[in-house]
Amino acid sequence: MNGAESLVHTLLANGIDTVFANPGTSEMHFVAALDRIPGMHCVLCLDESVVTGAADAYWRITGKPAATLLHCGPGLANGLSNLHNARRARSGIVNIVGDQATYHQPLDAPLTADTEGWARPVSAFLRRAANAASVGADAAAAIAAARTYPGHIATLILPADTAWEDGGIPAIAPPPAPPAPVQTLAIETAAKILRSGEPAMLLIGGDTERAGALLTAWRITQHTGAKFLAERSPARMERGRGRVAVERIPYPVDQALAAFAGIKHLILAGATPPVAFFAYPNKPGHLYPPDCTVHVLSRPDQDGPAALAALAAALGAPEIPTPEPMPLPPPATGAVTPEGVAQCLAAALPDNAIVIDEAISFGRGFFPNTRNAAPHDWMMLTGGAIGAGLPMTVGAAVAAPHRRVIGLQADGSAMYSLAALWTQARERLNVTTIILANREYAILRGELAGVGANPGRTALDMLDLSNPALDWCQLAGGMGVPAAQAATLEDLTRLLTESLTRAGPFLIELLI
Amino acid sequence: MNGAESLVHTLLANGIDTVFANPGTSEMHFVAALDRIPGMHCVLCLDESVVTGAADAYWRITGKPAATLLHCGPGLANGLSNLHNARRARSGIVNIVGDQATYHQPLDAPLTADTEGWARPVSAFLRRAANAASVGADAAAAIAAARTYPGHIATLILPADTAWEDGGIPAIAPPPAPPAPVQTLAIETAAKILRSGEPAMLLIGGDTERAGALLTAWRITQHTGAKFLAERSPARMERGRGRVAVERIPYPVDQALAAFAGIKHLILAGATPPVAFFAYPNKPGHLYPPDCTVHVLSRPDQDGPAALAALAAALGAPEIPTPEPMPLPPPATGAVTPEGVAQCLAAALPDNAIVIDEAISFGRGFFPNTRNAAPHDWMMLTGGAIGAGLPMTVGAAVAAPHRRVIGLQADGSAMYSLAALWTQARERLNVTTIILANREYAILRGELAGVGANPGRTALDMLDLSNPALDWCQLAGGMGVPAAQAATLEDLTRLLTESLTRAGPFLIELLI
Repeated sequence: MNGAESLVHTLLANGIDTVFANPGTSEMHFVAALDRIPGMHCVLCLDESVVTGAADAYWRITGKPAATLLHCGPGLANGLSNLHNARRARSGIVNIVGDQATYHQPLDAPLTADTEGWARPVSAFLRRAANAASVGADAAAAIAAARTYPGHIATLILPADTAWEDGGIPAIAPPPAPPAPVQTLAIETAAKILRSGEPAMLLIGGDTERAGALLTAWRITQHTGAKFLAERSPARMERGRGRVAVERIPYPVDQALAAFAGIKHLILAGATPPVAFFAYPNKPGHLYPPDCTVHVLSRPDQDGPAALAALAAALGAPEIPTPEPMPLPPPATGAVTPEGVAQCLAAALPDNAIVIDEAISFGRGFFPNTRNAAPHDWMMLTGGAIGAGLPMTVGAAVAAPHRRVIGLQADGSAMYSLAALWTQARERLNVTTIILANREYAILRGELAGVGANPGRTALDMLDLSNPALDWCQLAGGMGVPAAQAATLEDLTRLLTESLTRAGPFLIELLI
Repeated sequence: MNGAESLVHTLLANGIDTVFANPGTSEMHFVAALDRIPGMHCVLCLDESVVTGAADAYWRITGKPAATLLHCGPGLANGLSNLHNARRARSGIVNIVGDQATYHQPLDAPLTADTEGWARPVSAFLRRAANAASVGADAAAAIAAARTYPGHIATLILPADTAWEDGGIPAIAPPPAPPAPVQTLAIETAAKILRSGEPAMLLIGGDTERAGALLTAWRITQHTGAKFLAERSPARMERGRGRVAVERIPYPVDQALAAFAGIKHLILAGATPPVAFFAYPNKPGHLYPPDCTVHVLSRPDQDGPAALAALAAALGAPEIPTPEPMPLPPPATGAVTPEGVAQCLAAALPDNAIVIDEAISFGRGFFPNTRNAAPHDWMMLTGGAIGAGLPMTVGAAVAAPHRRVIGLQADGSAMYSLAALWTQARERLNVTTIILANREYAILRGELAGVGANPGRTALDMLDLSNPALDWCQLAGGMGVPAAQAATLEDLTRLLTESLTRAGPFLIELLI
C-alpha cells in the first residue's frame, strides 16, 4: 500500500467520504488511489476557491469534514480566501495540499512555493507528511484536529513521494471530543445580571443558532426582558415558520451602534465581542457602549446550547411555545425592489431549503423579510471575503442532495468564483442561483459616501460593472447551467417556482 | 493632503501611471484620491488574479512597474498565484494592499487576516505603512525595491487610516541602480571552458532573451560549437524572422534529460541551474549529468547582455549576420493538429505581436514552429501556476496598446481567471484569445501515465472537462468579448486574420 492509498483508506475509515478536488501533477497518486479504493465521492472543481468554499458549506450542513485536494502552494493560495471564510465560520476541513517530493523541494522548481507560509494563517493544524509510513497517522491527526469542537481547518501537506512510496499504514482518529464544559460561574453570573433588571442583551452566535438553542435563548430574553440579537453573519441559522426569529447585527456601523445603544451588560453565547466590520473616521470600533460589561456565557469551543439550557433553568424561564408566525403575504408583483424580492422569496421558499446569502448590498432586507417562510437554513458569508456564495451552493447541495439550495448572489461577488456553476452542472446539483444584477459594486458606492468622499468620474468608473454589462444567461449557459432573465417580480416568482420542480441547477439573472 | 493622495502623487512622480485594481472598502480613499489627481490609468479587474497577472505582463513589456490595488488579506490571497508567477518572471510590481485601520486591526473584525503572512513568500519588500506621513516614503521605498534589477515584488500594506489621515508627504524614489557588474573571472573561466573543446552548453534566461543578447549568445555558440538552449519558460523572448531562434528546455523530464546528455560544462547566462518541473519516481531532479560542472556567467541580478558581449569579445567570436529565415509555409488546412495550428499561427502572426503562451499540453510544438514568423515577443507562464494567461493578455495589451496580443490559452487553465475577458472588453484591448478546447486536463493524463498509474473511471473523471462541455463563445459573450468557434484550420486562419483587423478583443474557441 502506498502513502496515497493509506490516506484514502484513513479518510474513509474515519467517515470522510467526500473530496472536493482540483488536482495537479503532484496529486496523481492520490487520484490513482481513488480508482483502486471505492467509496469516495470526488467532486471536481475548476478553481480552488470552489474547492474550499464547497468544503466550508459541506461542514456547515453535515457537521463532518470534507477533504480538499489542492495542488502545491499556488493552488492552495487560490483557495485561501474561502478558507479564511471557513475559519470564520469555524468549519472543519481536512485540507490536503499536494506538493513537490521531499527531495525535490530544495531544488526550487518553478512551482515550488512556501506552502506552509500560506497555509499557516488559516490552519489550526498544519503538518507536512515526512514519508509514506507517516501519512496515515498524519491524516488521522488532521481529521482529529478538523473535528475538534466547534471545527477547524487542518492542513496536511502531502509531498509527492510520500504519496507514491510504499509502506502506507491507515490510521484511526480518536472520536471527536465533546465541547469544552460550560462553567457554572458563567451561568450564575449571567443569571444574576439578567435578574438585576439592568439593560442587558443576549448576543448569540455559532452553535446557538440552531432551532432548539434559539428557542431557549428566546425564552430567556422573553422571561427577563433582555434584548436578543444574533451575530452579523451566521454560519448557519435554522429559521422560518415554527422557529424563533432573531435579528442580526446590522452591517452599517451607525445602525449597529444603535442596536447596542443603552446596553449595560452584553452576554455572549457562542458569539465573540461585536466590532465594526471596518473602521470609519471618528466612529468607534467596538459596537457596545464604553460602559457596557461583556460577559461570556459560552465560548465558541463550549457547548452553547447546554449553556443556554442551564441559564434558562437557573432563571426559571418557563417553557413557552414559539410565537405564531404571521401569515405570509402573497408574492409581490411589479418592479423589482429589495422588499418585493424578499416577499417573493418568502412565498416560494420550499420546505427545508438551504439559503446561501451573498446578496450583499441589495439583499440586506432579505433576512428579516423571510422570517415567516417555510423552515430553512440560512448560511452567510462569514469572513467578508466575497466569492464564497457560488462555491457554497456546491458544497451545500453535495451535502444535502435532497434539499433545494437557493443562492442569493450579488453579481460582483459572483465573478470571483464563477467556475462553481460548472460543478453545479456536472454534479446535477439542485441549486437555484439568483444573480442580483445591479452591474456595480453597489456596496462600495455606499462605502465611498461613508468615508466622506464625493466621487467623481474616475472613482465611479471603478465601481461600475456595466461597461460591458455581464450577461449571466450566457455565462451560465457556457458552463452548462440553464438560465433565464427576470425583469419583474412576476418573472422572478415564475422562474423561481419552476426551478424548484426541476432536477439540477438553474440560474435566474434578476435585473435590479 | 491625506495619505492616499500622497501615495498617488508618489506613484505618478516616479513614473508609475497604471494601476490594476480590485478595490474594497479599505481602499476607498485611494480611489477618491484618483479622482482628485489626474494622470493615473485605472484598470478595473473583477478578481485579483487578473490584477496581479496583468501587472506581471505589464512589467515584462514596459520594464516599469505597475501598481496593484488589492483589498485586505483575502483580496491579496486571491492574487497570490499570479504573484508567484511574477516572482518567477522577476517582474517588478508595486503591490498595494489596503487593510484594516491600524487601531481596528487588533479587534479582529471578520475580514482581518494575516496580510503579511500571505504576502511574505512572494515579496522581496514588505512594509506596512505606519501613518499618513510615512506613506509617501514607504511607497518610494517600495518603488525602489520593485525596480531593483532585474525586478521584484514590493508589497506595501496600507491601513485605511494611513490613507484617510492628513499629513501625507509625496516622495521620490532613487533612480534604479544598474545591474550588478559582471565578474571578470566569470568571463575568463567561461572563455577557457569554451576554448577547451569539452562538451559545453550555454543556457540562457532572463535578460539574455532579447534580440541583441540572443544574437551574441548565438555567435558564441557558433564560434565554439557549444550547445545553445534557453530556460524552460521565458518571461519574454524576442524572436521571429531576423532574430536568432533557440530551443527551450523541454517540459517532459526524459526529453529534458536528453537535451543535457553528455554535457561536461553548463554555462548559465541569466538562467538558474535547470531542474525537473516535478519529481518522478526513479528520475533525477537535476537535468544536467552528475559529472557536469555548472558555471555562472551572469546571475539574474547581473547584466547578462554585457556578460555575453564580454565573453564574445574574449573568445574573438566574429560578428555574423543572423541566419536567413526559412520561407514560411502557407497556412495549413484541414483537421486541427498541433503542427497545423502552429503553421497557421506562424503565417498569420502580425509584425510585432505579443504572444502569451499558456497553451500547456497541446501547444508544446507552437514555439519551435513559429520561429520564422514575423518578429514578435513570446511570453510564458514562468511559475507553473496556471491561470496567468488571460490576465497577462490584459497587462500586455494595456502596456502596448498598438501591438496585437495573441493569447494561446488552454481551456482548463483559462477557467482560473476567466474574468480577465471582461477587462479585455471594458478596456477595448487588442487581444485575440485562442482557446484550445480539448475539454480535459490533458497534461494530467500524461502525468498520470508518467507516474505509472493506469487510470480507471474515477481518475479519468477527475481529468475530464467535457461533462458538461464549456461553451467558450457563450462565456466570452457573457463578458462582452465577441467570439466564434473554429473546427478546422481554415476556420482558424480566417477568424485569426479577421481578428487582427478589428479594434478590441476577439476570442476563438478552437476545437481540438
